[in-house]
Amino acid sequence: MKARVTVTLKTGVLDPQGKAIEGALKSLGIEGVGSVRQGKVFDLELTTADREAAEAVLKDACEKLLANTVIENYRIEIQG
Amino acid sequence: MKARVTVTLKTGVLDPQGKAIEGALKSLGIEGVGSVRQGKVFDLELTTADREAAEAVLKDACEKLLANTVIENYRIEIQG
Repeated sequence: MKARVTVTLKTGVLDPQGKAIEGALKSLGIEGVGSVRQGKVFDLELTTADREAAEAVLKDACEKLLANTVIENYRIEIQG
Repeated sequence: MKARVTVTLKTGVLDPQGKAIEGALKSLGIEGVGSVRQGKVFDLELTTADREAAEAVLKDACEKLLANTVIENYRIEIQG
């Protein structure tokens, strides 16, 4: 079973990386970008075929490792 | 206008970060994860309201900065 986890900064949390990218885009002459916020995406292959078990594993993985839940949100999408 | 760009490694490209996460999940006792591949996600606010102009800006940003097109794929999703 495949799944995608998307981890993004919570609203209001400063994103220095996003700011750096905004600056770099401007210096490359790419106009028209107001703001940029960067996050992470994880594509996972799960050994279980049971959806509920997969959700539990993914939630555990997010809470313990993939996301810093103090400043980040995570979204789990199970495919297939 | 808002958009999301998702950048992932091309198939076959080794992902040491993903491997490290696999190992970390195991050492945390989280079983059931076969493989992990990590990518990046960018949420952008564009100053234009014109969809075609937005697509051109985003493609330019991806090709020049957000993605290393030798080893990465990028997907552009314009919202709204």
